[in-house]
Amino acid sequence: MTGRNKNKNAGDQVSELTAGRLSVYLRCLNALEAAGIRAVSSRALAEEFHLNAAQIRKDLAYFGEFGVRGVGYYVNELKQHLRKILGLDRAVRVAIFGAGNLGMALADYPGFRREGFVIAGLFDTSRPKVGQHSRGGVPIFDLADFKKMAKKAAIDIAVIAVPASAAQGVVNEAVSHGVRAVLNFSPGALWVPKGVKIKNVDVIVSMASLSFFLAQADRDA
Amino acid sequence: MTGRNKNKNAGDQVSELTAGRLSVYLRCLNALEAAGIRAVSSRALAEEFHLNAAQIRKDLAYFGEFGVRGVGYYVNELKQHLRKILGLDRAVRVAIFGAGNLGMALADYPGFRREGFVIAGLFDTSRPKVGQHSRGGVPIFDLADFKKMAKKAAIDIAVIAVPASAAQGVVNEAVSHGVRAVLNFSPGALWVPKGVKIKNVDVIVSMASLSFFLAQADRDA
Repeated sequence: MTGRNKNKNAGDQVSELTAGRLSVYLRCLNALEAAGIRAVSSRALAEEFHLNAAQIRKDLAYFGEFGVRGVGYYVNELKQHLRKILGLDRAVRVAIFGAGNLGMALADYPGFRREGFVIAGLFDTSRPKVGQHSRGGVPIFDLADFKKMAKKAAIDIAVIAVPASAAQGVVNEAVSHGVRAVLNFSPGALWVPKGVKIKNVDVIVSMASLSFFLAQADRDA
Repeated sequence: MTGRNKNKNAGDQVSELTAGRLSVYLRCLNALEAAGIRAVSSRALAEEFHLNAAQIRKDLAYFGEFGVRGVGYYVNELKQHLRKILGLDRAVRVAIFGAGNLGMALADYPGFRREGFVIAGLFDTSRPKVGQHSRGGVPIFDLADFKKMAKKAAIDIAVIAVPASAAQGVVNEAVSHGVRAVLNFSPGALWVPKGVKIKNVDVIVSMASLSFFLAQADRDA
């Protein structure tokens, strides 16, 4: 990796969209490394994974990654660098609230461990569920015990997979014990205090966008 | 609802982002209607649901919805209008591929029915699963039988909840039987032919964005 290292403090101005793209590049690099490929050009990376080569170069140049002439990017080096930028060079501890189908699916999602996320546990209020494990072995704790776990070792990200009516209460509980980032799967907007970041995965909104596309296509037909 | 009706063909230029916001407004209107509220101003709508009043007015004006002076928007009328713009005034038929935890969670998601989505069935290749139902009563069919179902009644949206290795094959199968919109939960980019719309819900990318936010906050601290 040649070029000035503009990494320090560069993050301040980097949009969430860029962070999302860096994460996609990281996944692609993982796949290349698994396939035994040691270096890749932005063009090859773009072609292989249906990405935009100019965008890749722009995103990486922003972090001082210019690649090596005639070689491109060294896969492992770039991977380590992206992991660091994304904060994935350390274990990111995750608590999943709600041990229903969705919570269980997320707990056992194979991509999490690979990327450096540690699923510390599932939390639920259902008596029969507490003490059980997900198929992949993630323990289900009593929601009332979240406080204790957060005290022992900080939880970085709370994933909200409880019914809509319980979501705000659970977020408040997580935030009050030091959680500063929330991934919310429940519908509707949740309130978080300043300094806490929330991302919403809203399935109905995505489905409505697709429905809109279909309606539009039919109008045009 | 007063004002010119610019609805016809307006959809052509409307971004996906706008469609997403219209879907959020629709959800808010549903909640207001359930609470017995008949009319609402953009300001009250914004305050109640943490939205942007100017953005609401701009989005709705684009579709010829200017509201009524001193009244605001009539909740039910605006709701019906938004449903029509989003193509939710007709039943949108959905097939969910993959009857694992995620597929089952999606099949029983209470928001779908309320918004006009009809979950036609889950499709899986697992023998023990085929013939079973989700807790909410959605039947699990053999993936091989998707063709028959699609022939009887068109499927509008395919939801991909199968492991990454199976995702492209399932999308190809869905598209070859007339599906024109795909919501993909599997990681990585899938290929769809021109005229088919795909939306990706990428949990790892969302989590990486949150991790990035935390790393950035720690650097700044």
